Amino acid sequence: MSKSQEVEAFGGDCRDPSGVLSPFTFSRRFVTEVGKNVQKFKVEDKVGVGCLVGSCWKCESCANSIENYCPEQMLTDSPPYVDGIIIHGCFSDHTVADEHFVLRWPDNLPLDFGAPLLGAGITMYSSLRYFGLDMPGMHIGVVGLRGHGHLVVKFVKALGGKVTVISTSPEKKERAIKNLDVDSFLVSSDPDQMLIAMDTLDDIIDTVPAIHPLQPLIDLLKIQGKLVMNGGPLEPLDLPMCSLILGRKIVVGIDIGGLKEMQEMLDFAAKHNITADVKVIPIDYVNTAMERLDKNDVKYRFVLDIESTLKIA
Amino acid sequence: MSKSQEVEAFGGDCRDPSGVLSPFTFSRRFVTEVGKNVQKFKVEDKVGVGCLVGSCWKCESCANSIENYCPEQMLTDSPPYVDGIIIHGCFSDHTVADEHFVLRWPDNLPLDFGAPLLGAGITMYSSLRYFGLDMPGMHIGVVGLRGHGHLVVKFVKALGGKVTVISTSPEKKERAIKNLDVDSFLVSSDPDQMLIAMDTLDDIIDTVPAIHPLQPLIDLLKIQGKLVMNGGPLEPLDLPMCSLILGRKIVVGIDIGGLKEMQEMLDFAAKHNITADVKVIPIDYVNTAMERLDKNDVKYRFVLDIESTLKIA
Repeated sequence: MSKSQEVEAFGGDCRDPSGVLSPFTFSRRFVTEVGKNVQKFKVEDKVGVGCLVGSCWKCESCANSIENYCPEQMLTDSPPYVDGIIIHGCFSDHTVADEHFVLRWPDNLPLDFGAPLLGAGITMYSSLRYFGLDMPGMHIGVVGLRGHGHLVVKFVKALGGKVTVISTSPEKKERAIKNLDVDSFLVSSDPDQMLIAMDTLDDIIDTVPAIHPLQPLIDLLKIQGKLVMNGGPLEPLDLPMCSLILGRKIVVGIDIGGLKEMQEMLDFAAKHNITADVKVIPIDYVNTAMERLDKNDVKYRFVLDIESTLKIA
Repeated sequence: MSKSQEVEAFGGDCRDPSGVLSPFTFSRRFVTEVGKNVQKFKVEDKVGVGCLVGSCWKCESCANSIENYCPEQMLTDSPPYVDGIIIHGCFSDHTVADEHFVLRWPDNLPLDFGAPLLGAGITMYSSLRYFGLDMPGMHIGVVGLRGHGHLVVKFVKALGGKVTVISTSPEKKERAIKNLDVDSFLVSSDPDQMLIAMDTLDDIIDTVPAIHPLQPLIDLLKIQGKLVMNGGPLEPLDLPMCSLILGRKIVVGIDIGGLKEMQEMLDFAAKHNITADVKVIPIDYVNTAMERLDKNDVKYRFVLDIESTLKIA
């Protein structure tokens, strides 16, 4: 990377070594140096870098501002960069990035509570925007209420929609309704509740990254409803064809968003005071945090405070 | 049904007793009598009735001219009608239908070769139109080359698209290219051919009504490509989530179309000389035809010649 294209930034979600998205984020604050051709930023600007740091610039996805679908995309934790230099990823105290992949960080958006917006946040925002789930008055189902799920509830509410959370955990109901202003709560293991709610949802965002049945979710959709999948377990899920065909229903997948949309999402979040529910942790808590992730013992997102706690040897 | 809403008509596809669409159609010709409030038709008009003969008139689907998704829809072979009278379905020599469910039959469209348009034809046409696969220059994959498949090839070509047929049967290649003007032919069991064709298709129409893998088809799609499912086996199909998510790809289902779109489709077919490849059979061949259906021994569609061959006792 030529110095002229560099700025220093701070970042969002990262991926764990298995490639599965983890609720891990890190934070830093300001541009410390800019290359001579950098136009978007100057020293001391408040910025962010998400999980994307490079793409080919030549393909249709790059031309359409969806660099996240470029086949040569480079992730923050996928070293080395095009120039052969190792990208230190989310756990470094400084990073160098092409200005195209750096976001202007809104002044009123907290760095720690805002960091997960660049991973979970953009995926949820793009799901709503790209698939047309962003109209006021729409009734959106949200499956799962962890990192992605709680953020999409906040975006839907800010867009004027109505939210029904669908969960296997009845104990989450009170928190969902009190803290997240969710309109209703369905316990998916209760067949009576699910039967009553059939054909009532415009669309559903499914954030569960494990194997689970799609049939009950598709049944909740109105005719032409969309089931937007973000979780993505490695194993295939059972797709009931007749339910899909007889209701002209749609199952789609989506993963983060392009840089243009990321900036739009950050500005939208800042305007509507949308942040993630996070626990800020020091660097020496990383291994414990990883163990808790393995045990599913995390409510929303961890954010790693690199600046205050990483000691460079 | 009040006499004032009645016309006599002729029909399209029917369903076999298992509920699975069969390549069976029947034909008749003219309106013989109209009720006093009928406005669209007069005696001797050339008309058609498809598999839909009733709906609730009250739901959102009916209001949006997609009566085919009305939860109270009535099929040609699902007696009795709202007034309690048995609907004799596709195998009768006369039928009485509400004028809303009767199509004006274009003069230059043959009755026998056109009959399957009201079942397979409308499903294919609606797939292309509703999901935006109807732009000139689009590259559409077609999986399966029987009743539905050969018709969608004709519609795509008439719309100015390019067609790649994906089939397990290499022996169909010559016929596909010579008779149907298909642009290219992929043998799905040949991994080399499939690998070369990855990421090349804008969208795919999958007409296969049996269990088959979706992963290789999804891999053929470009970013944001749609896989439109018409076949609908009763068992669920494996849906590979990561391929869907990492390419923002879409899997959808669709079944026939509403009456307004059926008329549009018939007019389009007449204008572009699109008819089905059929074998016209007499009524006493029905049981043999059914056996051939069971054995998959049918190339395109049977059309049952009720008028000339059904003897009323």
